Amino acid sequence: MKTINIGLLGFGTVGCGMTKILLQSPGVIESRLGATLALKWIADLDLEGDRGVPVDESILTTDAGEVINDPEVDIVVELIGGYEPAKRFILKAIENGKHVVTANKALLAAHGDEIFSAASQKGVEVGFEASVGGGIPLIRSIKEGLVANRISGLFGILNGTANYILTKMTDEGRPFSGVLKEAQALGYAEADPTFDVEGIDAAHKLTILLAIAYGVPIDFEAVYTEGISKITPLDIKFMKEFGYRIKLLAISKDDGQAIEARVHATLIPEDAMLANVNEAYNALYIKGDAVGSVMLYGPGAGMMPTGSAVVSDLVDVGRNILKGAVGRVPALGHQPAGVEGRRIKSIDELETEYYFRFSAEDRPGVLSKVSGILGKHQISIKSVHQQGRDLLGAVPIVMITHEAKEASVQASLSEIDQLDVVKDKTVLIRIEDWR
Amino acid sequence: MKTINIGLLGFGTVGCGMTKILLQSPGVIESRLGATLALKWIADLDLEGDRGVPVDESILTTDAGEVINDPEVDIVVELIGGYEPAKRFILKAIENGKHVVTANKALLAAHGDEIFSAASQKGVEVGFEASVGGGIPLIRSIKEGLVANRISGLFGILNGTANYILTKMTDEGRPFSGVLKEAQALGYAEADPTFDVEGIDAAHKLTILLAIAYGVPIDFEAVYTEGISKITPLDIKFMKEFGYRIKLLAISKDDGQAIEARVHATLIPEDAMLANVNEAYNALYIKGDAVGSVMLYGPGAGMMPTGSAVVSDLVDVGRNILKGAVGRVPALGHQPAGVEGRRIKSIDELETEYYFRFSAEDRPGVLSKVSGILGKHQISIKSVHQQGRDLLGAVPIVMITHEAKEASVQASLSEIDQLDVVKDKTVLIRIEDWR
Repeated sequence: MKTINIGLLGFGTVGCGMTKILLQSPGVIESRLGATLALKWIADLDLEGDRGVPVDESILTTDAGEVINDPEVDIVVELIGGYEPAKRFILKAIENGKHVVTANKALLAAHGDEIFSAASQKGVEVGFEASVGGGIPLIRSIKEGLVANRISGLFGILNGTANYILTKMTDEGRPFSGVLKEAQALGYAEADPTFDVEGIDAAHKLTILLAIAYGVPIDFEAVYTEGISKITPLDIKFMKEFGYRIKLLAISKDDGQAIEARVHATLIPEDAMLANVNEAYNALYIKGDAVGSVMLYGPGAGMMPTGSAVVSDLVDVGRNILKGAVGRVPALGHQPAGVEGRRIKSIDELETEYYFRFSAEDRPGVLSKVSGILGKHQISIKSVHQQGRDLLGAVPIVMITHEAKEASVQASLSEIDQLDVVKDKTVLIRIEDWR
Repeated sequence: MKTINIGLLGFGTVGCGMTKILLQSPGVIESRLGATLALKWIADLDLEGDRGVPVDESILTTDAGEVINDPEVDIVVELIGGYEPAKRFILKAIENGKHVVTANKALLAAHGDEIFSAASQKGVEVGFEASVGGGIPLIRSIKEGLVANRISGLFGILNGTANYILTKMTDEGRPFSGVLKEAQALGYAEADPTFDVEGIDAAHKLTILLAIAYGVPIDFEAVYTEGISKITPLDIKFMKEFGYRIKLLAISKDDGQAIEARVHATLIPEDAMLANVNEAYNALYIKGDAVGSVMLYGPGAGMMPTGSAVVSDLVDVGRNILKGAVGRVPALGHQPAGVEGRRIKSIDELETEYYFRFSAEDRPGVLSKVSGILGKHQISIKSVHQQGRDLLGAVPIVMITHEAKEASVQASLSEIDQLDVVKDKTVLIRIEDWR
């Protein structure tokens, strides 16, 4: 049986997952691939400590160069994460004619074009199924399974940490900060949770999906990004009463002219499939002109699920090596000539429904002032809900609008927030119903 | 740009969907495939009537032989359905060195081994993504995306008609027969609904999935099959009170020794993701040793969704033709040497929880007699619910058991049904909670 040699850079959580699968299931992989995936090298700066994966010491090294420059290595797996030295190692591996498999969404969202173009010139593959949606085979599904479709929309829960926090806040009525601390203690959130809770990680992933779905260049800066750190239990209570659930949603839509691309806390109908995606699970809801709607659901992170996605790429690249079919599917799913230069819309162009919570003084005429300003900006109200005063004498007025323009919404809220009867910055949460 | 010639057999619903996609989206497909998919022939015995798809009359023929024997045709698409002449045409196309794409689950479940073996000997591809789950790319996901996993379980809602009927019965409390008639009027169910409502279509699909997931030979007869025609509104009312929803579920489990394979009406917890799969939608919940759990959801039938799956196979085969990589992935996902001869269990070996509804006379001691027989057969009761008498004086006693053996359950129910205080055959519905 033929052997395909793998060199691993980065022996962290996902690296251990990949290694475990290769060690535990060689028969499973061989019976499907018809060849052996042999782990020839594992490189990591820190090789101390027992990772619970019994590997032969002779394959361990602290020198990435030994892996990248070994002529016998067919595929280099980059699981270091971050920008450098990951980028340098990947480009060097490509230069050396190695195929690359990576889970590094931050790197691909920032420097994907450079990496994919280097790989294409050198005639090697770059697999990155593990970079979005952990173990869910969603990149492959868009590039191959839904290849017959013009994708018109993507709606994704792409960050497990944020989804875990919002799930706990919703189910237990607890504040963001407390749930975050618990998530950190349980290992669901990192010490610096910024990427996860501020939507940056989800925006990295959406950036990659945009390129695959629409054939647009990789452009992280064009994705509007907001997080969940300002969501309060009070807003969650109100939105539940209105029949919504809150999710950190990565959204894109293509109207054939320009593309919406945004990540923010979003209210979705409680009976939507995505509303039932809880805890650290991820899901991607895809709309295509032929298929209608498809949803893929599963673990968006974790040692073994993400390892499963890495190994699926190893098998995929391995199949191309065995058949001499490298480049069979373009890395981003589109032929170079097929990449379209469609514009990404700015958030100001968005038109959607909105949830507002105003903190107003409990005086006659307040609602009239607020709704007057909204009316002036052509924002019409779908439903409104006013409750008794809170401890400080402020009254939360909660409002759902009909579809309105983001630019008008922002203009009217700045006016409203300057009213002397308004005591706090108005809370704005966008609503989405894609069905 | 290169051209790949397609010959279509069967210009029905799915054939029209495939044709529409090829005519409407050539640019989309070319930008991804890097070649043109040209529809060279459409064969159907009946070419009368406007199908709403504007095709050039010169490609229409009533003679399938013209398609199969045309040396310029690269891929023959079989969308006739049924056993003959579909099987004969496919085998002849393979003999002529054509690749084949089909949506014909009944044929593959009965004669798949013969077809795949002929294709393998001839060195041509057989694509069948459209045969299971309509537009959902689930065959590709098991064969490629989850290739690193030992699959331990499959839980599928694989028949849209049955799911539509159960959804309406659940939401509206209506009887099976009335909902079926409505579904037939709306075109959701066929004039002869046997395959859909008796579980046969779902069993065909499960048969195909078993071969892909576990590498076992195709063996439709080994799949235990029961339908939904005996489900009553009364049972649906009771199971809702117990926190369950009812689905026609295709279930398989692999314990490493033997495989469970069964299709029957199944009670599942109301908060399970699959419980929210309603109307004519399909979904497959997959458990793998590395990935954990993944669920794929989408339209399980229909002109355009199934057409989308057919075209995904055309692109897949097209990519292999262009790269000279035919046979890159084995048709059923496993190398010939990798096919394992694992045993399929009989339904008697099943161990699960059960729902029973006894129709008993309203007399003292009835519950004691019934539970005595259950106890004798080692079946222990988890909860029991007895309501006031119905119009005929019979009392429904509803029971949920702990895990019990099917053989013991069947033995005890035959005893119970012979009691003079039991007025009607006891209703048995199996319960499943895979989480």
